[in-house]
Amino acid sequence: MIDKLAIIGVGLIGGSLALALKQAGAVNHVVGYARSDLTRQEALALGIIDEATDSLADAVRHADLVFVAVPMGAMSAVFEEMAPHLSAHTVVTDGGSAKAQVVDAARTAMRQQMPNFVPGHPIAGTEKSGPSAAFAELYQQHRVVLTPVDETSAEAVRLVEKVWQTAGAEVFCMGVEQHDLLLAATSHLPHLLAFNLVGMLAQRDDCDEVLRYAAGGFRDFSRIASSDAVMWRDICLGNQQAILELMKQYRQGLDQIEQAIRSGDGDYLIDVFIRAKKARDSRFAEPGLIDNSEV
Amino acid sequence: MIDKLAIIGVGLIGGSLALALKQAGAVNHVVGYARSDLTRQEALALGIIDEATDSLADAVRHADLVFVAVPMGAMSAVFEEMAPHLSAHTVVTDGGSAKAQVVDAARTAMRQQMPNFVPGHPIAGTEKSGPSAAFAELYQQHRVVLTPVDETSAEAVRLVEKVWQTAGAEVFCMGVEQHDLLLAATSHLPHLLAFNLVGMLAQRDDCDEVLRYAAGGFRDFSRIASSDAVMWRDICLGNQQAILELMKQYRQGLDQIEQAIRSGDGDYLIDVFIRAKKARDSRFAEPGLIDNSEV
Ligand SMILES: NC(=O)c1ccc[n+]([C@@H]2O[C@H](COP(=O)([O-])OP(=O)(O)OC[C@H]3O[C@@H](n4cnc5c(N)ncnc54)[C@H](OP(=O)(O)O)[C@@H]3O)[C@@H](O)[C@H]2O)c1
Ligand SMILES: NC(=O)c1ccc[n+]([C@@H]2O[C@H](COP(=O)([O-])OP(=O)(O)OC[C@H]3O[C@@H](n4cnc5c(N)ncnc54)[C@H](OP(=O)(O)O)[C@@H]3O)[C@@H](O)[C@H]2O)c1
Repeated sequence: MIDKLAIIGVGLIGGSLALALKQAGAVNHVVGYARSDLTRQEALALGIIDEATDSLADAVRHADLVFVAVPMGAMSAVFEEMAPHLSAHTVVTDGGSAKAQVVDAARTAMRQQMPNFVPGHPIAGTEKSGPSAAFAELYQQHRVVLTPVDETSAEAVRLVEKVWQTAGAEVFCMGVEQHDLLLAATSHLPHLLAFNLVGMLAQRDDCDEVLRYAAGGFRDFSRIASSDAVMWRDICLGNQQAILELMKQYRQGLDQIEQAIRSGDGDYLIDVFIRAKKARDSRFAEPGLIDNSEV
Repeated sequence: MIDKLAIIGVGLIGGSLALALKQAGAVNHVVGYARSDLTRQEALALGIIDEATDSLADAVRHADLVFVAVPMGAMSAVFEEMAPHLSAHTVVTDGGSAKAQVVDAARTAMRQQMPNFVPGHPIAGTEKSGPSAAFAELYQQHRVVLTPVDETSAEAVRLVEKVWQTAGAEVFCMGVEQHDLLLAATSHLPHLLAFNLVGMLAQRDDCDEVLRYAAGGFRDFSRIASSDAVMWRDICLGNQQAILELMKQYRQGLDQIEQAIRSGDGDYLIDVFIRAKKARDSRFAEPGLIDNSEV
């Protein structure tokens, strides 16, 4: 049971954790921080938080657990401002989508409190944002990755792990670098590939005409291009290194496919396509038919 | 009412048209051609065709309509072999996924019969193949693009249009080049992008580990990487020019995104992401939430 929980950023990610813990009866009092009065009033009205404040100091004072769920670009400033007001027992965790940058920011701003800081990333979300997007079930049967660093105390990890489990999530621990590479490969790069394709088509004069013939395959492929632009800018700039490394590999693969198409090397293409199909089918056994798989 | 329909290649695409026309009572007698006895027996047993043959000459003789639905790589040889046996009134159409190559092959093999040849492409499919994958409803509420060329007679187009409408499809006409470019943009390039990503991840030693953390966004993005390798080789080699042109543009876009990430140009990224999100949202209004949109 957590006595005081501070949610820094009461949007989709922060709000949903608050709701889940309240619903589980695992928390006594929830204080929410947001910059705008509108956000705070909405979060109060929706019962996400019991108390709202525009002061980071007040929010974190005497808290048992602080969950930082602001956009990644704002994490550093938030850490700086709240650090002086953390109690010795306060455990801090976050929900940022890339971890190396957050860990760097935490080391700079909260050197004293690093044993109590547990970097984390819930692999769950929707395309909506703000307090009204939050719901208690968001994390149920979803994965949460924690990336404790050398300084992190085992006790702090145990608390955060328990909290996420209480919200219905499955918790995994891995290194910061491994997390950032895994996510670059399975999330960040695919988002960029989809954004780039749709962004390129959008610049054509005949874009409407082109998209009129886009069917099921394209719809699924491009779904992630509908994601929030600010969040994705922050992720790109927050996971630069891993993303650039994977983009390089990706472009080498694309070069080879292009070369094979140009020279009519069908065997090379078959090899790539079969390898991809096998890997995907082994990870996602598809129930039923794929409508319009060709297009 | 068609008296004799010849289906050349009684798989998913050919078989489904036969079933739809039979169900609509729009055809008297259906003859099916396939190379292997197994395919022919299956198609007969499933009631897709009334008569099976391994002779292209017999299949097309006295037919009112011939639908060629073999893999694109086989179209040229099939046209050559059947051409001498076509009657003056026989209309020929096909279902190949790229049109310029098919039109070239038809012009070479069926110069005399070009007025009766209507190039076509049903924008419908599933990931399954063979006679057992065929079903009468495949084309219902799906689009079929016809790409008549200068030689094509209006009468032949009208017949083929009516046939597809009878199968439940919406028929559009456009130029060969426009079709191939549209499809390269909304289908062929996205398939290559997905094949390349999954193919690249499949080569990693830690592929299983990486894919274990891949969630909803990746699943949707990579669905098309589960498509048939031979068919996609044929499409790549059959639509070389349009695909290479779009790949070039795509790589320029990727270069600029890479450059923006490297130099920390967040404004550029926001511009691309917003443009993409707007275009996609305007084409596909999403009912409900996207689960795991982030990952
Ligand atoms: N959405 C996803 O799918 C997803 C999944 C996993 C992790 N994440 C991560 O979770 C974090 C939050 O994402 P979210 O989707 O919950 O966003 P959100 O719904 O927009 O909520 C963000 C919250 O932070 C506040 N905020 C915004 N800018 C701020 C700033 N500069 N300084 C202080 N507070 C600020 C907002 O209120 P005010 O504007 O009123 O201040 C709001 O309460 C991000 O770090 C993101 O990377 C997101
Ligand atoms: N699948 C899709 O999503 C989709 C969508 C739109 C258009 N198309 C196009 O439709 C065509 C057929 O695709 P499909 O999915 O129906 O394939 P399919 O289910 O594999 O059927 C192909 C048929 O052609 C025969 N065949 C295979 N190779 C041949 C060859 N070398 N010579 C003569 N016959 C051959 C097969 O029987 P045997 O092996 O016994 O000869 C089978 O009857 C392709 O041109 C494809 O581009 C496909």
